Amino acid sequence: MATLCRPAVAVPEYVITQEETLDLARSIHADHPQLPLALRLIENTGVRKRHLVQSVEETLAHPGFEARNLRYEAEAKRRVPQVVREALEHARLTPQEIDLIVYVSCTGFMMPSLTAWLINSMGFRPETRQLPIAQLGCAAGGAAINRAHDFCTAYPNANVLIVACEFCSLCYQPTDLEIGTLLSNGLFGDAVAAAVVRGSGGTGVHLERNGSYLVPDTEEWIAYSVRSTGFHFLLDKRVPGTMEPLAPVLVQLAEQHKWNASELDFYIVHAGGPRILDDLCSHLKVDPECFRFSRATLTEYGNIASAVVFDALARYFDEGTAVDRATGLIAGFGPGITAEVALGRWTVPVKPQSFAKTLIRSSN
Amino acid sequence: MATLCRPAVAVPEYVITQEETLDLARSIHADHPQLPLALRLIENTGVRKRHLVQSVEETLAHPGFEARNLRYEAEAKRRVPQVVREALEHARLTPQEIDLIVYVSCTGFMMPSLTAWLINSMGFRPETRQLPIAQLGCAAGGAAINRAHDFCTAYPNANVLIVACEFCSLCYQPTDLEIGTLLSNGLFGDAVAAAVVRGSGGTGVHLERNGSYLVPDTEEWIAYSVRSTGFHFLLDKRVPGTMEPLAPVLVQLAEQHKWNASELDFYIVHAGGPRILDDLCSHLKVDPECFRFSRATLTEYGNIASAVVFDALARYFDEGTAVDRATGLIAGFGPGITAEVALGRWTVPVKPQSFAKTLIRSSN
Repeated sequence: MATLCRPAVAVPEYVITQEETLDLARSIHADHPQLPLALRLIENTGVRKRHLVQSVEETLAHPGFEARNLRYEAEAKRRVPQVVREALEHARLTPQEIDLIVYVSCTGFMMPSLTAWLINSMGFRPETRQLPIAQLGCAAGGAAINRAHDFCTAYPNANVLIVACEFCSLCYQPTDLEIGTLLSNGLFGDAVAAAVVRGSGGTGVHLERNGSYLVPDTEEWIAYSVRSTGFHFLLDKRVPGTMEPLAPVLVQLAEQHKWNASELDFYIVHAGGPRILDDLCSHLKVDPECFRFSRATLTEYGNIASAVVFDALARYFDEGTAVDRATGLIAGFGPGITAEVALGRWTVPVKPQSFAKTLIRSSN
Repeated sequence: MATLCRPAVAVPEYVITQEETLDLARSIHADHPQLPLALRLIENTGVRKRHLVQSVEETLAHPGFEARNLRYEAEAKRRVPQVVREALEHARLTPQEIDLIVYVSCTGFMMPSLTAWLINSMGFRPETRQLPIAQLGCAAGGAAINRAHDFCTAYPNANVLIVACEFCSLCYQPTDLEIGTLLSNGLFGDAVAAAVVRGSGGTGVHLERNGSYLVPDTEEWIAYSVRSTGFHFLLDKRVPGTMEPLAPVLVQLAEQHKWNASELDFYIVHAGGPRILDDLCSHLKVDPECFRFSRATLTEYGNIASAVVFDALARYFDEGTAVDRATGLIAGFGPGITAEVALGRWTVPVKPQSFAKTLIRSSN
């Protein structure tokens, strides 16, 4: 029984509002023939602000791939430990009790991955398994949850720490002028998140089933072009339409689990953009209110890639409305185009005290 | 019961011999103050030849990170499908029967990973899970086997395809003149490999236990510096000495399994270099002959990174000396410094015919 515990999320201290983003686009791309379209697309994202690891001026400058990547490493080392500590506290575990670290990040590249540094500097056992994933993009949050679930299914007493570290602003490419890039420049934000999947015990989402789906022949719709200037994000205009083939996948996975995807108690969905959320809501025939956690992430932080599902889930925890055995769905979407979907049920461990009370009552 | 079936391995058509490597080093680095040391280190590798995806002339030219990476993608698409087909045949499975593809490669970077292309072009189901790992370097072969083992433990009827695609020559950096780099330039080779882990059935190594170990505070001993010119491989001179801390890890893992690491029937060990093999042999107190498969890989192909363990294992299959229930160890070593170790037993499925014969005999 694998339980996804309360995630910890942190966003960096530099903030850019949508107004500032639009002003920047107007001044930088004054001569761009599609500027009005770009502005409209950015406005439509509904992203009110985003957080960045450095000032807007520094973000706009491109100091080279090497400097960018060194910055990634420095920022990751500065920001990840705190969310890891919080996630461990939420799960009531120490680093020594973690058996696997799944580290997902597509916005910087390190070998060895940050997992080695985390193990060395935060007191994890040298025997901790390392699973760094760099190539699943925004779907990697869902993939991390699903592989953690699988691991705890294989080893029921194991505990898995998930870390999602995304500094999308470090992939800003000033020379890319495609409309998809201009939109991305106004959509993506930076964040770090961590969460623990406990093999036994813990409060949170008891993971019951997971599934993956690759939308056939869409490899090039979301992709990196890897160049001397770093990762160049390519976003095809057909991407916002992908909920049409993906919604039935979620429905079918729920059916396999004897659940109705339209009648779940909570939905934690990758906030890739507003159309993704609107369309999925409509295809699944659920009230827009059901997507409030993902919508809040998008509005307040932008698309924070693999960290979205953890931030949206943290908001569900914060709201405090979850009731025991509430059913829900977690879905990450990303390059491939890949969907990583999990089905789970809110679970609260039986408290020894209440258990004792029950015993006393039933014996009366 | 997860069984690692016969791997398929392919090396590219361009060949460079040790003599050619030494001649090249002499001419390119004629003025290098440590040339004699570099030549001695290269000679000591015992690598007789290596295979490359392009001619030596092309390998030595650096056309830029973007061109290198596009070449990586093109060569991967050209060379991977055949080993995948062979590995599936060895496991007597079709693409439709694969549930997870683990793709390991540290010598090129793609997002989406090649898994998406493989699923789209080779008839795998869209539901096939994708696990691309780019940051475990040479240890990724062992990690792939271990994560496949875990997956089959979670889902006993699942089948996992592993692909290791390493074109080390595409990471050649002509401006790097450290002694570790000069040695690496004479050590690493190109290869692609694939193998299937079957959840049930199959002939090969029945995976019984796995473990991981990070040698504390050695993060910087094997690392990539990521620059505008691509991945720059950094190899610390302390690396060859790492079998001293790692041999006890293998011994202990075997002990946990009630096995004696010095008395196993087969050893499939990452051929990082000659000293790794010599030292581990000596620490484990086993006959050098026990490491003949890894030694042959090193001699004929060089260090082919995450593909080594699959090539060495293929040689064990080829030798045909394995007997039912023979005990063995598979170990990958790489950046971190990380060891990924598996313990398994040679297994041959009961043949229906012989089973019938046994019944007839016992009824007589």
